[in-house]
Amino acid sequence: MNEYNKIEKKLNLSFKNLKLLESALNHSSLKNDNALIQSNEILEFIGDSVMYFIISEYIYINDKEQITSGDMSIIRSNIISNETFGMFAKKIHLDKHIKISKGQNKIGISDLMLSNCFEALIGAIYIDSNLENVKKFIFDNFKIEIHDLFSKRPIKNEKMLANESRQKN
Amino acid sequence: MNEYNKIEKKLNLSFKNLKLLESALNHSSLKNDNALIQSNEILEFIGDSVMYFIISEYIYINDKEQITSGDMSIIRSNIISNETFGMFAKKIHLDKHIKISKGQNKIGISDLMLSNCFEALIGAIYIDSNLENVKKFIFDNFKIEIHDLFSKRPIKNEKMLANESRQKN
Repeated sequence: MNEYNKIEKKLNLSFKNLKLLESALNHSSLKNDNALIQSNEILEFIGDSVMYFIISEYIYINDKEQITSGDMSIIRSNIISNETFGMFAKKIHLDKHIKISKGQNKIGISDLMLSNCFEALIGAIYIDSNLENVKKFIFDNFKIEIHDLFSKRPIKNEKMLANESRQKN
Repeated sequence: MNEYNKIEKKLNLSFKNLKLLESALNHSSLKNDNALIQSNEILEFIGDSVMYFIISEYIYINDKEQITSGDMSIIRSNIISNETFGMFAKKIHLDKHIKISKGQNKIGISDLMLSNCFEALIGAIYIDSNLENVKKFIFDNFKIEIHDLFSKRPIKNEKMLANESRQKN
């Protein structure tokens, strides 16, 4: 059993194409060490959109009658954030499994890198299987966290306030 | 055959719940005339995420090997834009079918209103049926436009450049 089989088992996943899991864990800095390596940016691109869709649907299904669309957007931004996804990544120990370059190793692993790695993992699961499997993975692992973020009073985060202030000026 | 049956027929759609089509065409200004009316903002919320996912997948499937994730994001932003969705809305004559308040009628219908109405229609189709039907509707009606936007050299639009400039300052 190789390293990726072990990670797969720990995450309770079953990849048809284990190379996708491998790519999802490869940070772009690795290309500094080896230009031919398949890093996780393309999987992150698709995973980002999968998460945006799944979380939007979750918010719609769970509260479409009671809150305004403005509040729905605030809740969505609070869930779809580098902070939240960084936290999700740590919960499933992606910080132990992400591969980074020697140079990056000296600087360390940021929350943004972990958030991107989480999105790439979601992209990998989607490309390897389907939306239903992604939803299962998300709600098996983060149901409580998502429910808590969803149930909090919608409060605009710093990024939203900064964007609004910039749009006014 | 009522008005909405006619629109449904023109758009080659078949709603189980025709109220969803009706809501999708109701601009929020209508609430000024009748506070109880169901306007299209919640459907727009879900339609936005459906479009983001479908277009991301389209870009991924069609060019995952040849362009960078940065260029994929630029292409996505050019397709997922009020300008493009406003153009899609006009192509299927949503400007003829959108309902607005008497006050708004004096000001007129903006591209942003049409873009939002288009997203709400996508949300309505998704809620009424499934992703496959949305994809069919999108590619039956806008295949050429999406392919053209996808094939253009990725050039950052004004909004992207403005965001980058703000982030630097």
